[in-house]
Amino acid sequence: MRYLAPAFEAACPGTELRYADALGAPERIDAAVCWYPPPGLLATLPRLRLVQSLAAGIDHLPAGEARRAPLLCRIVDPTMAGGMAAYVAWAVIHRQRAMDAYLASAAAGRWQEEPIVPPARHRVGIAGLGTLGEACARALLALGYAVRGWSRTPRPAAPAQVECFHGAAGLDAFLSGCDTLVCLLPLTEQTRGFLCAEVFARLPRGAHVVNVGRGAHLDEDALLAALATGQLGAATLDAFVQEPLPAGHPFWHHPRIVVTPHVATRTDAAVIARQTLDNLALARRGLRPPAAVDPAQGY
Amino acid sequence: MRYLAPAFEAACPGTELRYADALGAPERIDAAVCWYPPPGLLATLPRLRLVQSLAAGIDHLPAGEARRAPLLCRIVDPTMAGGMAAYVAWAVIHRQRAMDAYLASAAAGRWQEEPIVPPARHRVGIAGLGTLGEACARALLALGYAVRGWSRTPRPAAPAQVECFHGAAGLDAFLSGCDTLVCLLPLTEQTRGFLCAEVFARLPRGAHVVNVGRGAHLDEDALLAALATGQLGAATLDAFVQEPLPAGHPFWHHPRIVVTPHVATRTDAAVIARQTLDNLALARRGLRPPAAVDPAQGY
Repeated sequence: MRYLAPAFEAACPGTELRYADALGAPERIDAAVCWYPPPGLLATLPRLRLVQSLAAGIDHLPAGEARRAPLLCRIVDPTMAGGMAAYVAWAVIHRQRAMDAYLASAAAGRWQEEPIVPPARHRVGIAGLGTLGEACARALLALGYAVRGWSRTPRPAAPAQVECFHGAAGLDAFLSGCDTLVCLLPLTEQTRGFLCAEVFARLPRGAHVVNVGRGAHLDEDALLAALATGQLGAATLDAFVQEPLPAGHPFWHHPRIVVTPHVATRTDAAVIARQTLDNLALARRGLRPPAAVDPAQGY
Repeated sequence: MRYLAPAFEAACPGTELRYADALGAPERIDAAVCWYPPPGLLATLPRLRLVQSLAAGIDHLPAGEARRAPLLCRIVDPTMAGGMAAYVAWAVIHRQRAMDAYLASAAAGRWQEEPIVPPARHRVGIAGLGTLGEACARALLALGYAVRGWSRTPRPAAPAQVECFHGAAGLDAFLSGCDTLVCLLPLTEQTRGFLCAEVFARLPRGAHVVNVGRGAHLDEDALLAALATGQLGAATLDAFVQEPLPAGHPFWHHPRIVVTPHVATRTDAAVIARQTLDNLALARRGLRPPAAVDPAQGY
C-alpha cells in the first residue's frame, strides 16, 4: 500500500497516510483505503467516514465490516475501462480471427490462410453492463462486432446498438446468441459460479468464454468438461479461484485455454488518490459520491 | 474468379459473366472485374465502360491499361473496413499489452505480470486515412489509444480526436509521435518503399511497425536492420514483396516479427457484385460513382 504515498502527496500535499501496521490514534482516521484489510480492523476506527475500495468491486472486502461503513466507494477509472476494453477486444479478435492459428503456422514457417468471418457476423455477449462492460461494448461495436449485453436490471443508458437483456427471465435468450461470452459481472452471492455447466449448455456450440470478472465466477471443472465435449470451443481466463494459478493446474497447458495473470486492467495510483480525496470531501459535506456502493447489492 | 458467379446471380439474375479464357464477342462486354488481368486484355474490349478493381486499391492493375479505362472503380466495403480494424486493433494490443509475453509465459506454466501502460499513453499513427484507415482510427479511439493520422492531403472529415498531419511537410512531426506506426497507404509511385530506413529513424526508439498496406510499401532489409539496432521494437506484417512469403525468409522465425498470410481483411463476393452493378448503372447514365479512382493519383 505504501506505493500510493507519492500519488496522495501529489494530489494533496500534506495528506497524512498511515498503514495497517502502525495506525496510531484511531480516532484521527477519516478514510480507509482497502484492498484486503486485516479482519476486524475497520471496526476499530470510530470516526471513519469512508471505506474506499481499491477496485471496481467490493467483493474482496469482509462483508460485515463493509456493510457497517458509513460510506463505501469503489474506484471508477476510465483509464481502467480502456485497459479492460483493450484486453477484451484482443481476446475476442485473437480467437475470432484465428490469430492463434496464424502464430502457430508462422512458428512452423507455414503460409496458411484461415477462413475470415466478418465481425458483424460474430455475436459478442457481455454479462455485466457497468462502466467496464459498457467500455468493452463500445470498443467491440467500433470494431464491427454484433454486441449484446445482459445485466440484473435494465440499462437504458447502454449504447443503442447493444441488444440488451436483463434478469433471470432474459438470460436464456441472451446466452443463445453469444458466440463469445464475456463475464464482467460484479461478484455477489447471486453471480458466484455464474460460469457453470448450465450456462455453458445454453451457449451456441463451440462458443468462446472470456472471464475478466473474478475467479469465483467460474466453475473450473465445468469449464474443462464443456471444452472436452466441444460445447465450448475456447476460453480466455484472467482471474482464477487461486492466484497465482498453481503449477500443474490443467488450465496452464490446455490447447484451447489462454491464461493471463490477472492483468486485464489496473488502476492508476493517481486515480486512486484523487478519487479517495474527492469522495472524502463529498462525505464531509454530507453528499453521496457517484462511486458510492450499496453494500446490499454489492456494487 | 468463377467464385463470384453466385453473388452476381443473386444481385442481378441473368447477368452474363464471361471469363478471361472464353470472352466471346469482345464488343458485348461493358465491364471488366479485375484482380490481375492478363496483360493487354483490357485494350481488346472496345465497348468497355467500367474497369472494376477487386480491391480497395488499383496498384495491381497494369498502369497503362487502367489509365485508358473510361471509368476505373475500387471496392469500398464497410465489412472490409471492420475486418481491417479488428486486425489492426489486435496487432496494436498484442504488442502494447505484452500479450505475446503472456502467451510465452503461459506456455512455460509461468505466472508473470508485465507492466501495464494505459492505452491513452500509447500513440498509434495511421499513415493513410482512407476508408480503412479511418475505420481503424475509430476503433483505436474507442479502445482509448491516442491516435494520429497522416495523409497526402488534409482530411477534414477525420474524427475530431485524431491528430492529423499531411503532406511531406507534416511527415516528420507525425512520425516522431508514433509508438506504433500502421501503414494503410494506397500503393502509388510516391508511397512505394514508404517504410524505409529514413522513416524508421524518425520514429520513437522501440516503435512497432504494422504493415497492412502492400508488400511494396516495405523495404524488407531496412526493417531487419532497424530491428537489429533496437530502433524498431517489433513488426507485424501482413503483406510481402513475394507472396506466399518464401520458405527460409528471415521474417518467418524472427522473434520480434509477427507474420500473417495476407489476411488482414477480405471483400465479400456479395459486395463486389453489388458495387460492380451499381457502378456500371451509374456509368451508363454518365454519372461518376463515389468509388471512382483517379488513375493519376492511384486511388
